[in-house]
Amino acid sequence: MADTSAKRLLDSDKTGEPAPDVKRGKTDNENGREDGNESVQENVLSGFKTSSVLSDSAREKNIFIHGKVADQDAVVILEKTPIREDSLAELFSGSTLKLEMKNDIYSTYRLQAPPHLNEIKTTVVCPATEKHIKKYQRKESFLVEETEENYKNITLPHIVKQSFSVQWVYNILEKKAEAERIVYEDPDPDVGFVLLPDFKWDQKQVDDLYLIAIAHQRDIKSLRDLTSEHVPLLQNIFQKGKEAILQRYNLPASKLRVYLHYQPSYYHLHVHFTKLGYDAPGCGVERAHLIADVIQNLQSDPQYYKTRTLYFPLRADDGLLSKFKEAGRL
Amino acid sequence: MADTSAKRLLDSDKTGEPAPDVKRGKTDNENGREDGNESVQENVLSGFKTSSVLSDSAREKNIFIHGKVADQDAVVILEKTPIREDSLAELFSGSTLKLEMKNDIYSTYRLQAPPHLNEIKTTVVCPATEKHIKKYQRKESFLVEETEENYKNITLPHIVKQSFSVQWVYNILEKKAEAERIVYEDPDPDVGFVLLPDFKWDQKQVDDLYLIAIAHQRDIKSLRDLTSEHVPLLQNIFQKGKEAILQRYNLPASKLRVYLHYQPSYYHLHVHFTKLGYDAPGCGVERAHLIADVIQNLQSDPQYYKTRTLYFPLRADDGLLSKFKEAGRL
Repeated sequence: MADTSAKRLLDSDKTGEPAPDVKRGKTDNENGREDGNESVQENVLSGFKTSSVLSDSAREKNIFIHGKVADQDAVVILEKTPIREDSLAELFSGSTLKLEMKNDIYSTYRLQAPPHLNEIKTTVVCPATEKHIKKYQRKESFLVEETEENYKNITLPHIVKQSFSVQWVYNILEKKAEAERIVYEDPDPDVGFVLLPDFKWDQKQVDDLYLIAIAHQRDIKSLRDLTSEHVPLLQNIFQKGKEAILQRYNLPASKLRVYLHYQPSYYHLHVHFTKLGYDAPGCGVERAHLIADVIQNLQSDPQYYKTRTLYFPLRADDGLLSKFKEAGRL
Repeated sequence: MADTSAKRLLDSDKTGEPAPDVKRGKTDNENGREDGNESVQENVLSGFKTSSVLSDSAREKNIFIHGKVADQDAVVILEKTPIREDSLAELFSGSTLKLEMKNDIYSTYRLQAPPHLNEIKTTVVCPATEKHIKKYQRKESFLVEETEENYKNITLPHIVKQSFSVQWVYNILEKKAEAERIVYEDPDPDVGFVLLPDFKWDQKQVDDLYLIAIAHQRDIKSLRDLTSEHVPLLQNIFQKGKEAILQRYNLPASKLRVYLHYQPSYYHLHVHFTKLGYDAPGCGVERAHLIADVIQNLQSDPQYYKTRTLYFPLRADDGLLSKFKEAGRL
């Protein structure tokens, strides 16, 4: 159960990125620079020795580092700060520009800004335990190519052997848990489902809307099990899910991204509804399959998902990855 | 032409987010800072007057600004640069730390770094037209459902009428421009292509690797034009692109996400190679199509992409969206 819950919580975990909890600590330093109370410390990091980069993000401009501060293990997190509109005038007048490229109306520069206008948020955890270090470590992902035979010989036996419990899913379907969270239900045993907010969504704004539809049918592990006989189920989830979201959140279908994951994080058929434009973890082409595409594919080839080679990322610590490696498939 | 270049810069535009094309420019400046050839320009932005912030991203630390440079309309894009592992030692020893918060083992600081270790990538479009300004303005997106008929009656006439120039693509293919940026080329007129870094990638780290393969064949506008006759071309791009990336960047195929966009931002066949785990703009399931899936689909149904209903996001200001609305398709 613990393992299952963990898996559930990890459901939309992005491949390999640790949570950017770099925002821990001071929340508002609009006027911090001018604040006479702040201490200019002896630079505790001047003697910092990097042991390894635990993870980083070029997109978010952050880096998580393990190293030593005066012989103690430490984790240091650096993240560049957002560019503030109210600093632009000073930024433009006070910086040095170095031309890189000029072509017609386009030119690019490297801008070197006054340090106080271009700070780096720095978090230090010291002394850090093994647990801290593991927490911030990126779990690399690898793209796996799963043929029909690989599914039968590697993936399916692994799923069966692990026998991941989906009792918590049954609890929801039977109203033994989370009944008050249900947004919509179609109780039909064949094409019915329960729609409820994903745990990642705090429901405070629709900008990051994220709901999950869980099928009442219990014998569909994943996309691989789907055939044309499931088209009515998929169509029903797609159609009634969109209607329920329009009704409850006033968000039309043209603002929704509706998809399945493969591999899913739990082996009971469920469908993700997220807001278009919200960069939901797990909505990348390497893991998500639009339900509209799935329906079309099954309509033209009932065995589409049973026979295709499917691609998906697996984290370095996923047991299934080891199985693919053992089989020489990576 | 100007408009087309803008389209190119917007290539990997996320739904609703302007493209962080701030990485355009300098291609290899590992040692750029010490490079005597670079010009320290008169600061063309010192007199920049901001009219409005077109959009910004706190997550990605970028901002798109409309304003005036010496009475001319300009768009300026600022994006902070990723934190580089090889600069950490100098960063730690050469910066000033300002304590913000200390609680048990956790403390946070504002780090003020030497400017040359903390640059801001700056792109200037000047003079900028109304079109440029519109392009960079944050715009909502809508998911469009395009049937085979919609493509023939709405999308194709729109593409033809707009007659977007791809002269800059031909310049690359003919080595009239950017020849020095080419990473690999297969000159075959039927299955050949040119592989080069995307403008969004500064090539300083492979974490956000992003390359584009541009086909030598000139008559393929997009995914919609692909049939089984193009399978050898796609296979060649997929295979040789992966090999070239392994050779040049030491990144194996299992770390790559290789896909096409639909709609593309320019109508000449090109394929995106990005690093798995890098949350590249435009890699969402609503716009990206894995080349491996495309190949399989064409192998089992030569007319797959000609006949399918395809889904894609369009920004509120996209002329094509108006056409779909006029046709009652939204």
